[in-house]
Amino acid sequence: MPTAKVHRIAAAAPDDVSGIAAAIAAGAIDPTGVVAVFGKTEGNGLVNDFSRALATRALRDLMAAHVGAASTAHIAAVMSGGTEGGLAPHWLVFERAEAGSGPSPALAIGRAETADLPSEHLGAPEQAASVAAGVRRAMADAGIPDPSDVHFVQIKCPLLTAGRIAAAEARGARVAIRDSLKSMGFSRGASALGVAIALGEIDADAVAAERIVVDRSLWSGNASTSAGIELLNHEIVVLGMSAGWSGPLAIESAVMADGLDIEPVRAALARLDLAAPGQLSAAQSERLVALLAKAEASQSGWLRGRRHVMNDDSDVAATRHARAFVAGALGSLVGHAEIYVSGGAEHQGPDGGGPVAVIARREI
Amino acid sequence: MPTAKVHRIAAAAPDDVSGIAAAIAAGAIDPTGVVAVFGKTEGNGLVNDFSRALATRALRDLMAAHVGAASTAHIAAVMSGGTEGGLAPHWLVFERAEAGSGPSPALAIGRAETADLPSEHLGAPEQAASVAAGVRRAMADAGIPDPSDVHFVQIKCPLLTAGRIAAAEARGARVAIRDSLKSMGFSRGASALGVAIALGEIDADAVAAERIVVDRSLWSGNASTSAGIELLNHEIVVLGMSAGWSGPLAIESAVMADGLDIEPVRAALARLDLAAPGQLSAAQSERLVALLAKAEASQSGWLRGRRHVMNDDSDVAATRHARAFVAGALGSLVGHAEIYVSGGAEHQGPDGGGPVAVIARREI
Amino acid sequence: MPTAKVHRIAAAAPDDVSGIAAAIAAGAIDPTGVVAVFGKTEGNGLVNDFSRALATRALRDLMAAHVGAASTAHIAAVMSGGTEGGLAPHWLVFERAEAGSGPSPALAIGRAETADLPSEHLGAPEQAASVAAGVRRAMADAGIPDPSDVHFVQIKCPLLTAGRIAAAEARGARVAIRDSLKSMGFSRGASALGVAIALGEIDADAVAAERIVVDRSLWSGNASTSAGIELLNHEIVVLGMSAGWSGPLAIESAVMADGLDIEPVRAALARLDLAAPGQLSAAQSERLVALLAKAEASQSGWLRGRRHVMNDDSDVAATRHARAFVAGALGSLVGHAEIYVSGGAEHQGPDGGGPVAVIARREI
Amino acid sequence: MPTAKVHRIAAAAPDDVSGIAAAIAAGAIDPTGVVAVFGKTEGNGLVNDFSRALATRALRDLMAAHVGAASTAHIAAVMSGGTEGGLAPHWLVFERAEAGSGPSPALAIGRAETADLPSEHLGAPEQAASVAAGVRRAMADAGIPDPSDVHFVQIKCPLLTAGRIAAAEARGARVAIRDSLKSMGFSRGASALGVAIALGEIDADAVAAERIVVDRSLWSGNASTSAGIELLNHEIVVLGMSAGWSGPLAIESAVMADGLDIEPVRAALARLDLAAPGQLSAAQSERLVALLAKAEASQSGWLRGRRHVMNDDSDVAATRHARAFVAGALGSLVGHAEIYVSGGAEHQGPDGGGPVAVIARREI
Repeated sequence: MPTAKVHRIAAAAPDDVSGIAAAIAAGAIDPTGVVAVFGKTEGNGLVNDFSRALATRALRDLMAAHVGAASTAHIAAVMSGGTEGGLAPHWLVFERAEAGSGPSPALAIGRAETADLPSEHLGAPEQAASVAAGVRRAMADAGIPDPSDVHFVQIKCPLLTAGRIAAAEARGARVAIRDSLKSMGFSRGASALGVAIALGEIDADAVAAERIVVDRSLWSGNASTSAGIELLNHEIVVLGMSAGWSGPLAIESAVMADGLDIEPVRAALARLDLAAPGQLSAAQSERLVALLAKAEASQSGWLRGRRHVMNDDSDVAATRHARAFVAGALGSLVGHAEIYVSGGAEHQGPDGGGPVAVIARREI
Repeated sequence: MPTAKVHRIAAAAPDDVSGIAAAIAAGAIDPTGVVAVFGKTEGNGLVNDFSRALATRALRDLMAAHVGAASTAHIAAVMSGGTEGGLAPHWLVFERAEAGSGPSPALAIGRAETADLPSEHLGAPEQAASVAAGVRRAMADAGIPDPSDVHFVQIKCPLLTAGRIAAAEARGARVAIRDSLKSMGFSRGASALGVAIALGEIDADAVAAERIVVDRSLWSGNASTSAGIELLNHEIVVLGMSAGWSGPLAIESAVMADGLDIEPVRAALARLDLAAPGQLSAAQSERLVALLAKAEASQSGWLRGRRHVMNDDSDVAATRHARAFVAGALGSLVGHAEIYVSGGAEHQGPDGGGPVAVIARREI
Repeated sequence: MPTAKVHRIAAAAPDDVSGIAAAIAAGAIDPTGVVAVFGKTEGNGLVNDFSRALATRALRDLMAAHVGAASTAHIAAVMSGGTEGGLAPHWLVFERAEAGSGPSPALAIGRAETADLPSEHLGAPEQAASVAAGVRRAMADAGIPDPSDVHFVQIKCPLLTAGRIAAAEARGARVAIRDSLKSMGFSRGASALGVAIALGEIDADAVAAERIVVDRSLWSGNASTSAGIELLNHEIVVLGMSAGWSGPLAIESAVMADGLDIEPVRAALARLDLAAPGQLSAAQSERLVALLAKAEASQSGWLRGRRHVMNDDSDVAATRHARAFVAGALGSLVGHAEIYVSGGAEHQGPDGGGPVAVIARREI
Repeated sequence: MPTAKVHRIAAAAPDDVSGIAAAIAAGAIDPTGVVAVFGKTEGNGLVNDFSRALATRALRDLMAAHVGAASTAHIAAVMSGGTEGGLAPHWLVFERAEAGSGPSPALAIGRAETADLPSEHLGAPEQAASVAAGVRRAMADAGIPDPSDVHFVQIKCPLLTAGRIAAAEARGARVAIRDSLKSMGFSRGASALGVAIALGEIDADAVAAERIVVDRSLWSGNASTSAGIELLNHEIVVLGMSAGWSGPLAIESAVMADGLDIEPVRAALARLDLAAPGQLSAAQSERLVALLAKAEASQSGWLRGRRHVMNDDSDVAATRHARAFVAGALGSLVGHAEIYVSGGAEHQGPDGGGPVAVIARREI
């Protein structure tokens, strides 16, 4: 039976892969088993965030030196820019080992890729459909037949640049949105709806073009999507519990209704035997392997009946505000801020909220 | 016996004083009793934050219409820019009513002003000494003889301009710092040390010129200071508990060691009968009248052993990151983000942390 | 015959009206003749630019002290935020004196206001129609019957905030754009099309909803529109040459095809007897009373066959880039940067370019 | 006799080296002759500008594929972040060919590197001395004995990060400045003073620690220095005219007294037979191979007697303002904005101004 391993490793810079290299050298990571690497990098998380491409390049160079370029191409490298507030830049290395032991069901990892997305399909039902098919392939890859066992689906999706828009229009196509920054939201939103379709959270018919990004009553409680300039297709990683996997790790999830809604996360931690009235103790924090969350400013401009200004700040993007804020909320719960908070939660949880997943080492 | 009243009122814009006007019209606020108004305004909290001047202007126009320009000049108007993350712009109106009832001791408010500060004393031990004497007068005004009953001291302090520096140098004096912007930090720092002296947190002898702004091991756990160009002296507001006051309100305080250190704040809330294992309930939150905190990125670049990037972000100032982050941490504790988180904490709490005060309505 | 006077006065801060006050005290400005004041203020020129409201408030307070609140309400106060690059914050005070002398035709000033704009009309043909009617009233006010004698039409138009959008939607209306920042562009664009209709540059029928902001082949060569949070209607000022006015001032205009296209401006200067092969001489610069221009990043992402990144910069808005850039281009032509460069030139000149007006004192 | 070749090649992204690759494939560039590559990349040009590291990595990978890693290490890769305003991201590839023909003297290129700079020497006289020695080596490498024949010295210098400061302090060293962003200015300034020493513009004794960054009366009219996080030493490239080189290219230089002072640049162009009363014609622009300039906001806060706000903008760094502004001024002179404007001109030209170099193809 396979076993999933998750390694959380600090990064001193976007291209600092020395911690991963050291773990490989020490035998803690078997590079041939690496199926996905998430990176929380210190750019702005927006259009001109080059920390993601730099991190990807450094990571791929490292992995290629160990497993060759061909195998490296199959590792899902999902860089999420933006470490606002106290967020600590770090890597999450997901490894599949074949000779597992320990309890079962256990954390399982699956992955898939889609074909390149034509620019005119970005933010459109076609993108959601493409992603939904990809999520189903990733579930099969993970050995998770039941959508209710899926706790987190991380997707890296493309965005539109001025150049890509011009290219599409030059061949007569019409894009859903002509603004680069906005295109990230459309791509994230359509991708999340694809997850919701695959997990049975919404019906595929509900995803009409005019509802994408607009109708926030449609959402997935398990999707986490990030847009990046460095790819043209989708990279999909599914995390869930599978009876076909064994090992010490388990995953749980929750949905935050807004950026302060930490009690569902506290409950999810408790389901992993990490119950605490206030902040996790140091010993508990040690067993918490990874916390992944989406953060977003509510479109309404309100948070619990009070006005927020995140959408009206023309100097700092709302996604940057939201990541810093949710980092504080979740960090105060778990006791540190080396957590994977990703911005832009269109159709990922309700408006202003977002899905959260926690991976913990079980006491055995 | 006097009674302190604190009104927390939402602001729809920096110059939105309609909520205060409505409270006056409804008789909830007696304008003749207003001694101080704090405003959390939605600028960047930095040099070019015009939301503060706009708010001050709107507030003074409103108050002058009720109590005249002369009386308005004696109201301490302390605007703190920056509502990052989910922070809600709002006013805190502090009122002293003479016909009090309810338990005693109770929240007491005192204020004082110092003499104009010679420019050569700004950022120097003389400034700290002047502030210390002023804090003692404000304590006397509040009827608080014991420094341990003081929970928050808000100070508005002067800064140096090119003209002020030239005038000082023309008479042969030498200023501590010739840069206007930097003079704000020196003034805040020296003022905070003055609070620490008055409250017995440090010894006056410890405040040597070369340690001001530099040696962060010197700090007050109760000071909150901000510099403004519009004054040459110091405006001091002391908040604490006094046996000479009665009323439903009480104040407590805590010091956060870093931006995630919410457990001391939870304990302070519990001392006000607002104990909760997780987030405050809606009923509890209703009794929480005000939460005031200082936020800051640690100069070390580390938070609980993990790197943060707040000091290396050239696009967004560290103070903005820190306010958003601490807003999330404290907001997740109390259940909303209409809280007064202020940045720039030289000698106000330890490096990376800061003082916090909570004012609550007691169950009677 | 009336005479137009234009006073260019430096501002040391958004609320610094001391220069205007001094000019009034010295008799250089007759406050009863002031019909419009343009301010180039030092905010970001975007949604949360409070320098505009602060400047407006300071200006209105000053004028009210001289001419009363009722008359002050009829002064068009058009604050344009954003003094990027070397742009100098300044006021342009437009005065109408009745006992004119000097050559005729001469610079003439007219003004008008529209009714408040319903949020659902912002960025729609209704807004253009309302503005067109207003421009015609302002032309009549200026005594300019022929549109070809109009050289500059400055319009201050409203924007949508989260609150205004919510209010509109609460009563069942649907806004053209739900993003505050983007709403500024829609409002500027629809207003500019209104100018183009009034001046006969385009046909009213051409202004279909789907072409607003999108189809940049529609534009006015004389419109300059700025959106601000501080008003709900439109303030319109028309500047042109009228045989009904006399005096030393004359106005000319040009259209820049892109941000580097300064030769048409050089030609316009020459038509006002300010010909120079390179930069204007000091003596020439002295005769240049005002330079007003629109700046914009081309939507195409290209400038003279080379890529620019203004639209892909998520840290600094394209309008801020463009103002700084065009300020350098025009400043290098006229020898200083106390010029009124306003950003966001949707439908104001061709994509990436913009209208320019120059007002000069004729050698008599 | 050697010949210098300069190739100006557009970049579609920081890591877009396809244009260089195509030029190599076409035989236009001989990779074995490449001695230096300057890149104008589209980051913020400040501490967290990862576009520079990404560009460097892509460039080195490309060159290593052609000439091997060892030779690639000797190519000076000088990435200057920041393409504000209309600036076009691009590469300048400097090549030395051995079989030259054409007029002599001609453009000559020399280069050198220094040893790694200890963090405590950054911004100190030791840094200037190290750079001065390096410049002399680069002049020898270029075959330029006379400093008056040097027209441009490009230096890439290191900066301090929180980590580097901590490391230095851990071993008891004391850095000149503890702020990452400010350390860039100190490094640029001390490096420029090193150039001034080497070129005889100032005396080495003049470079006292307390004058670095502070005393702007000390400056080089030929230095261009950029700080980057990606190196610890200095990379030096000298450009000038040498009787030992032949070929069609020639270089001239000028010093701008401020950001609008384009007439000296117009004169330098004329000395290269590119005289024009207004903007260069298309044919002239074709012969202009490269324009390199430094841009800076004056510390005084004044530009030609008018206030600028670049130093008071806490949202956008002064260097970003200045690059956009000077790009407009110079772009309006030469007719496009694919020019190398680099920010942060401490001791590079007078306060608020900066050195400019132009390289042109002579008509033969």
